Amino acid sequence: MARFCRAGLYLVTSQELSRGRSTLDIIKAALAGGVRLIQLREKNMPLPDFVRLAEQVRRLTAETDDLLIINDRLDVAMGIGADGVHLGQTDFPVAMARKLAPDLIIGASTHNAAEVEVAQTAGASYINIGPLFPTQTKSWSGEFLGLEGLRILAKAARVPFTVMGGIKREHIPDLLQAGARTIAVVTAVTAAANPEAAAREMLSLIQGHDGQRTLV
Amino acid sequence: MARFCRAGLYLVTSQELSRGRSTLDIIKAALAGGVRLIQLREKNMPLPDFVRLAEQVRRLTAETDDLLIINDRLDVAMGIGADGVHLGQTDFPVAMARKLAPDLIIGASTHNAAEVEVAQTAGASYINIGPLFPTQTKSWSGEFLGLEGLRILAKAARVPFTVMGGIKREHIPDLLQAGARTIAVVTAVTAAANPEAAAREMLSLIQGHDGQRTLV
Repeated sequence: MARFCRAGLYLVTSQELSRGRSTLDIIKAALAGGVRLIQLREKNMPLPDFVRLAEQVRRLTAETDDLLIINDRLDVAMGIGADGVHLGQTDFPVAMARKLAPDLIIGASTHNAAEVEVAQTAGASYINIGPLFPTQTKSWSGEFLGLEGLRILAKAARVPFTVMGGIKREHIPDLLQAGARTIAVVTAVTAAANPEAAAREMLSLIQGHDGQRTLV
Repeated sequence: MARFCRAGLYLVTSQELSRGRSTLDIIKAALAGGVRLIQLREKNMPLPDFVRLAEQVRRLTAETDDLLIINDRLDVAMGIGADGVHLGQTDFPVAMARKLAPDLIIGASTHNAAEVEVAQTAGASYINIGPLFPTQTKSWSGEFLGLEGLRILAKAARVPFTVMGGIKREHIPDLLQAGARTIAVVTAVTAAANPEAAAREMLSLIQGHDGQRTLV
């Protein structure tokens, strides 16, 4: 998990939200912009296409020693040799995944303190806390956590956590202040006019803050 | 595969086509009727529910030493300790499944000679040939194979094969004549007024024929 915790920015892909560019091209741009941690999430892609794309992204990220997490499908993650799998509340059970893949990075989506507790007890390597803010990538009938919700769940987390949901560049200082160290984004990179520049800029905001923090 | 090849009848489940009865109850009835081979296929069930049901059915079938195959999800099959997984043309790739699970029964849906060849080369333990006849369980834009198509694909099969698609009791003699030994059904059991009796009757038709055949 050391590389995971150092990554700072966590790019989650979405072909539909990439303004006509391919997810592969977005990932190449993001890697060029310094991204070291990618979650391949393509909810509407037929599985054979998803597997082929995952194999391509695995080759790319292996060359640069970057981390690849597969959304939802443990079998795909294991099949293509990904570093991890990310499991939502209605995906494959975390405890079963941990048993089948003892060494895999396993992430779990959590939306409240009870889910945080269940996920880390079940063996999640990290949890995602979200959605923080309204977002077009998730239809969500629950409450948005906001910074106050984040602070509460961050305290409940004994494993590393990521944050997600409607995060834009301007939120970063507040998120870091609230304890976030790994910030997950979709459209802030995938829908940016220049995904490489957008990734680089967010990373420098995240890592710049960390740099200041070590001086305190 | 010996138990698989001896089973004769292959029950494929579908909650929606069980006339308000639960898949678990249909399976209990089918087991009572002599079914020894079950594929759990619940395309519209949320994954956590599917996993829980699969665990229940695994316990049931383990008690009677019957075979359980999971549709589509290799991770679920591995996670609950199923005997096998059945993969459609748009599911997880057979070759990747074979690599991850060397000892699992892996079935593949095939609809023409090219798919038969690809599936058995990729490492399928068995192939399903279908759909033979019009059926309400599959929206299908291709041709129905019929008995003639079955004969052609059966010749191409080097691994054991099952047949599926709109099969009713009255088709069984012709199917056996065409070389089928394992007959997969959904509604012929799940939608029967008495699933236990329906299963028993189909099994006796299938095994009766086999009995005669050994006398030839």
